[in-house]
Amino acid sequence: MPAVPPLTSKTPSAPEPPTLPEALAQRYGEPWRGQHIPEALETHPLLRALLSRRSVRRYRNDPVPESLLETLFACAQSAPTKSDLQQYAILHVARQDLRATLFSWLPKFPWLAQAPVFLVFFADIRRGRHACRMHGRPHANDNVDTFLNGAVDAALALGAFIHAAESAGLGCCPVSLVRNHLEPLSRLLALPDGVLPLCGLAVGWPAEPGRVSMRLPQRVVVHRDTYQEQGLEAELRAYDERRHAREPIAPDKQKNPERYGTAERVTWTDQVSRQLSVPERADLTAFLHGHGFGLK
Amino acid sequence: MPAVPPLTSKTPSAPEPPTLPEALAQRYGEPWRGQHIPEALETHPLLRALLSRRSVRRYRNDPVPESLLETLFACAQSAPTKSDLQQYAILHVARQDLRATLFSWLPKFPWLAQAPVFLVFFADIRRGRHACRMHGRPHANDNVDTFLNGAVDAALALGAFIHAAESAGLGCCPVSLVRNHLEPLSRLLALPDGVLPLCGLAVGWPAEPGRVSMRLPQRVVVHRDTYQEQGLEAELRAYDERRHAREPIAPDKQKNPERYGTAERVTWTDQVSRQLSVPERADLTAFLHGHGFGLK
Repeated sequence: MPAVPPLTSKTPSAPEPPTLPEALAQRYGEPWRGQHIPEALETHPLLRALLSRRSVRRYRNDPVPESLLETLFACAQSAPTKSDLQQYAILHVARQDLRATLFSWLPKFPWLAQAPVFLVFFADIRRGRHACRMHGRPHANDNVDTFLNGAVDAALALGAFIHAAESAGLGCCPVSLVRNHLEPLSRLLALPDGVLPLCGLAVGWPAEPGRVSMRLPQRVVVHRDTYQEQGLEAELRAYDERRHAREPIAPDKQKNPERYGTAERVTWTDQVSRQLSVPERADLTAFLHGHGFGLK
Repeated sequence: MPAVPPLTSKTPSAPEPPTLPEALAQRYGEPWRGQHIPEALETHPLLRALLSRRSVRRYRNDPVPESLLETLFACAQSAPTKSDLQQYAILHVARQDLRATLFSWLPKFPWLAQAPVFLVFFADIRRGRHACRMHGRPHANDNVDTFLNGAVDAALALGAFIHAAESAGLGCCPVSLVRNHLEPLSRLLALPDGVLPLCGLAVGWPAEPGRVSMRLPQRVVVHRDTYQEQGLEAELRAYDERRHAREPIAPDKQKNPERYGTAERVTWTDQVSRQLSVPERADLTAFLHGHGFGLK
């Protein structure tokens, strides 16, 4: 078994997390406008690390030991799960031929080939059906709710895996693009009915610090008592400005250039509208119907 | 502003996390059968804490300071989000009259009234529509994929919030039962179209240690290279035995007793089949269609 590299979030390439007010300012791209942060919170190591989290797309050549990986799977399984039903699964794509085939479908992500570990997280409503058969009862929930429960369980497991991995010094990058190749992926991984690939995840020891992605202000995302939309557009425009000033979207990252061309200035809302105005994955419903997910 | 209670996961009622092999054994209800855990991992404080995580349903009377809550919202927003679209929202139900009405729909959970903080997490595909309007483009993704992306974003934010809150010594319990009351909840919280309540979350300083929920073995949940089902039923039966021996399901927790009665022994697969054999939330599709979620 390979030696475990130092287990610390301070890998050579990852900067020391900033204090909490600094981390908040970095996350939102503006000075913190919320409540005063008391000193007791300012240096809280975990919250600082969480606030500074970033996806990592370049990895060192070192392998991830199996013992660590299994520990991280256990952390993923420690996430909450709806009604204790555990309607998700995880698959480690380790075989080189499977990796090569899968990555050949994602040519825009050449960095995937360097990731020592590639996982896929699934909504899995198959085990529940099996439990029903074991007890001679019908499965009476071929509906959108069960599909949703499986997807949420899988997302919670994915999030817990990422937190645990990052706590151990690893870097991760979720790859939802696997959902653009559902039929061939299902054949490649021998997925039976009731198992939906939700998201891939590349994992490895960081060879780059990554980048803190600037988020919408809490004023837009977090509501109090009732859902509020006053001032939304002004906030979105101000966010567009802050993001464009710090991290302009390069022409080769601009969505759907064949329809909209490229431009020197593509703001976040512009990019969102470029993406959402062109249908994506219209085949998902057909896939679900054909693979054991009733959507009644 | 109230003082911040000591920010440590070692609250009086929470036991010191066990070492990693102990935590793994507790999580799975059997001695660890995976790879040998190297010493470098055994005492990793974060992984131990993650492996020992538990939901908490009883809270001390102390309030949660706003500054801490806002920090935790920022941690939630630090979670990954699909294509950077940020298709989720969070609502803090703080007003007493709103809390009282909402909790009156959930009489099986009287402990909710003691939770100092109650949040609701939403899939929110409304902001994306707004961005399309701002740029004069049509929203062309009224489909299951966009619904799924919003739900996964919300789940990742929920998971990151829980992880951050628990790191700060708080206890949480997700409450998906809010989805049994979608129409009245939407009116109560003034939700516009394109906003789906996914999950509630009770938050407070723990007044009980909580209980580590025993999980299915990795042998069943984590696959390698291809999806494997050999030995599934034997593993499920063995898991049923382990769970029943450690935490039998009490008669008042057994699902759908009006149809299936109660029994001294209801195993996990029995409980799952009791739940999944009776339709739940069959109205979700109608709600989605009526509230701006096209499911094409």
